[in-house]
Amino acid sequence: MNSPTLPLSFNPAGIELDRGQGLSRQLYQALRQRVLDGRLASGTRLPASRDLAAALEISRNSVVRAYDQLYAEGFIEGRVGDGTYVAQLPESRLPIKKATKVSTGLSPGLPTGLSTKSPVLPGITSSKVIHSEALARVEQHHLATPQSGPPRAFRVGIPAFDLFPFEVWAKLNAAFWRKPDLGQLCYGDSAGEERLRGLIAAYLRSSRGMQCSAEQIVITSGAQQGISLCAQLLVNPGDGVAVENPGYRAAGHAFAIAGARLHGVAVDNEGFDCAALAGLSDCRLAYVTPSHQYPTGVTLSLARRLELLAWAERSNGWIVEDDYDGEYRYSGAPLAPLAALDRQGRVLYVGTFGKVAFPALRLGYLVLPPALVQPFAQRRALDVRHSEVSTQAVMAEFMAAGHFQRHIRRMRRAALSRRNALLAGWPVDIPGVGKVPNVAAGLHLTIPVDSLARERELVAQAAAVDVEINGLSHYWLPDSPLPQDRRAGLVLGFAAVPEAAIACALERLRRAWGV
Amino acid sequence: MNSPTLPLSFNPAGIELDRGQGLSRQLYQALRQRVLDGRLASGTRLPASRDLAAALEISRNSVVRAYDQLYAEGFIEGRVGDGTYVAQLPESRLPIKKATKVSTGLSPGLPTGLSTKSPVLPGITSSKVIHSEALARVEQHHLATPQSGPPRAFRVGIPAFDLFPFEVWAKLNAAFWRKPDLGQLCYGDSAGEERLRGLIAAYLRSSRGMQCSAEQIVITSGAQQGISLCAQLLVNPGDGVAVENPGYRAAGHAFAIAGARLHGVAVDNEGFDCAALAGLSDCRLAYVTPSHQYPTGVTLSLARRLELLAWAERSNGWIVEDDYDGEYRYSGAPLAPLAALDRQGRVLYVGTFGKVAFPALRLGYLVLPPALVQPFAQRRALDVRHSEVSTQAVMAEFMAAGHFQRHIRRMRRAALSRRNALLAGWPVDIPGVGKVPNVAAGLHLTIPVDSLARERELVAQAAAVDVEINGLSHYWLPDSPLPQDRRAGLVLGFAAVPEAAIACALERLRRAWGV
Repeated sequence: MNSPTLPLSFNPAGIELDRGQGLSRQLYQALRQRVLDGRLASGTRLPASRDLAAALEISRNSVVRAYDQLYAEGFIEGRVGDGTYVAQLPESRLPIKKATKVSTGLSPGLPTGLSTKSPVLPGITSSKVIHSEALARVEQHHLATPQSGPPRAFRVGIPAFDLFPFEVWAKLNAAFWRKPDLGQLCYGDSAGEERLRGLIAAYLRSSRGMQCSAEQIVITSGAQQGISLCAQLLVNPGDGVAVENPGYRAAGHAFAIAGARLHGVAVDNEGFDCAALAGLSDCRLAYVTPSHQYPTGVTLSLARRLELLAWAERSNGWIVEDDYDGEYRYSGAPLAPLAALDRQGRVLYVGTFGKVAFPALRLGYLVLPPALVQPFAQRRALDVRHSEVSTQAVMAEFMAAGHFQRHIRRMRRAALSRRNALLAGWPVDIPGVGKVPNVAAGLHLTIPVDSLARERELVAQAAAVDVEINGLSHYWLPDSPLPQDRRAGLVLGFAAVPEAAIACALERLRRAWGV
Repeated sequence: MNSPTLPLSFNPAGIELDRGQGLSRQLYQALRQRVLDGRLASGTRLPASRDLAAALEISRNSVVRAYDQLYAEGFIEGRVGDGTYVAQLPESRLPIKKATKVSTGLSPGLPTGLSTKSPVLPGITSSKVIHSEALARVEQHHLATPQSGPPRAFRVGIPAFDLFPFEVWAKLNAAFWRKPDLGQLCYGDSAGEERLRGLIAAYLRSSRGMQCSAEQIVITSGAQQGISLCAQLLVNPGDGVAVENPGYRAAGHAFAIAGARLHGVAVDNEGFDCAALAGLSDCRLAYVTPSHQYPTGVTLSLARRLELLAWAERSNGWIVEDDYDGEYRYSGAPLAPLAALDRQGRVLYVGTFGKVAFPALRLGYLVLPPALVQPFAQRRALDVRHSEVSTQAVMAEFMAAGHFQRHIRRMRRAALSRRNALLAGWPVDIPGVGKVPNVAAGLHLTIPVDSLARERELVAQAAAVDVEINGLSHYWLPDSPLPQDRRAGLVLGFAAVPEAAIACALERLRRAWGV
């Protein structure tokens, strides 16, 4: 290939092009690489495109395109009446020189495009490159990342979404996209689509007794974003934040990365211990799950609800009320949320569609005291602008057409029936395992276990026969005062799979546990 | 309605129920309200359900349901063999007492459900209730919120999405939802769907010369979330961050709320002034738009690109490269991004589908140095878990089937043709307005104006005839050293509407401006 007859100050030796690939792109990359690593010095004269094409046995067009690209990027420059030269680049141009590996020539066996690949971040570890204190805090925590993959018994946090009317949803989606309103596809309202906000407010008024208006609703990408926004807007670094202990760790993490000092507050059979909260003088915010405490399943008593509201009022504090599975109540109507009892605008209510539709939907909402709506919407605009628009529009239509209310009833019946399947088949007398509690609400239950060692053993034996059970020990803050063995238990979601699959899983468990 | 013959210590006077509504719910609300505001004191004996039903002329069932709900919530309690009493509530129970308005009776004309509505947050203003320093910083800035509503000439940041193949998109959506993979609808990967990440990496390798792998991609809900994640993970409070001035204000805001001290760096005809950056000793991060500076349209020269990379290497700094409209280049091939030149893993590349598909899609991605992927994905899990899953799956299918590449070509042709329509019809000799620049890339152009007063006049006159033009003055940081009049100009997006609409808008502008 090398042609010694060409009058070049530039030597094309070593440039090998793969005939099966884009030739001009390969040539461009080979030349750029040589400029960057210094083999082609500033001021080097390049051959005329015709000559280089002949030397490399490719079309002149390919060379012209490669030169054009290098020219456009400033790697080469033309001098009038004189030809083409490698451009004058600043002395500091060569970041490649400090890399640990510099390819000294183009590997003959590889297309040149590939040979420009070089190691990224050699020798740099994550702890060296990330400066944020916040991240360091996250890394110290166990990340309560939910399990992924198809639903299995007894995954926590998964509703009976195999019953979701996907045909209806597909039709509503197709209808939205076939005749889209172009105005809706520009940038939207960061507080969310107006129609959906109105329908959510109406739903909460009728189903939860919340006297809220559409203007108080901010649509979020799931409950987690709602919690995260509360953390980012209401917590200053160093503020105390009270969380239930045991509790929803991902909420604690969201507050921690906003700079909160987390205080774990005990949960007894009336729920969150408000007297303990009152003793925490630096606390400005309490995160609670009153309908169905996560993960213990306790319902916060009315007396405690009022105590909590009085605390917020007295201390000018905030209550973040996560009503993640409030739709699921099996005896009596759902309890009135704190947000419905609040008269002073101290409660931020977190709702989600994930537990009624399906988790991957990532659609939720906040109900905010009116004065907070604008700051939250603004912050959201800077975080993410707004939620994906078709999901909002389709959910609005799903609600307006009555599918949503019907589906809630269907899901509640299904969850109840699956709860019953679990309770009916749960082995009695498992050594070291306590009594199954009364389960009046929610999608999961928690059973005490005598010791951490026994919890681990049971969870591992279950996993070995393809049954997911969470250890209660994972739901505690790391510095919990309770002895380790008092924190042990089994957390089981009962709604994720149909009754038959529950029965099979229980059969496998019985064998695995020998009971 | 009041029946004096009943042996009650409880007086139902004033309870009026709207027959058109749910009676038990109204009764429940009326009673709850009376407990909360003290009209029904603890220990008050309630009438038997049969008696109250007779007194109110409603069915006994309705009373039983209301009592059940109050009982479940702890407002009332049963005493064995003795009847039903208002429960003993803690002394601190009455948040309503401090509200400015307390309804002293149920308005006769209103259903009782409505009468429980009371003012929320009376007398509290946003500045009193929000404690976060971060928010205070946001409030000081002008929020560069994009315009909403249907596309109009000459809205900035909007591609020719009237040409998007919505029929194809509708079909792909319907196909996804009709046969959903239940595993995909549980919680997903916070870094994004694997298939989409692979397709994006392949696209960037072929179209941008970036030697990146699927593992380096983190899917985001649009470019703004990518920028916001960079801010939250890489900036410590008090860190200096360099941004282009004029520049993309929403990026500056995202850094500011993470605690950054913003330094505006001037933009000249080679782009971002790297010499000025080198003089900023506290800067750890630079945010730049190299392909097509926002809003001036300048392309960062190769010399400056290498200088910038050398700065990052020398100072252990980060470069956030926002390639928001890199697909649009009208002469020569797109320039190689900084991320393709980076050999030290200092560049975080922000990409978006919003400028190729449509803005409301909210789908974008980061290409990260490998060591940063895990921290970013974890942070994202806490912020929002993951992006909506169907959008990711449908975009993956759209790319895999070749629609995406075809659509980019279609969009580039359309934007070029619309650019030409604007350039051809733009009035010459508008008093106080400079020359239209050479527009080789992007979706907008910027034209200098002599003074701020003239800019405002032109923008207002355009708005009066339904033409959107942004004043360049809005793109500067508040403390810019340049005199106000030197910051004036007109920013026009040329792709948002078809050629005929552009011609009409130009005709209206000519009349409005008298040229």
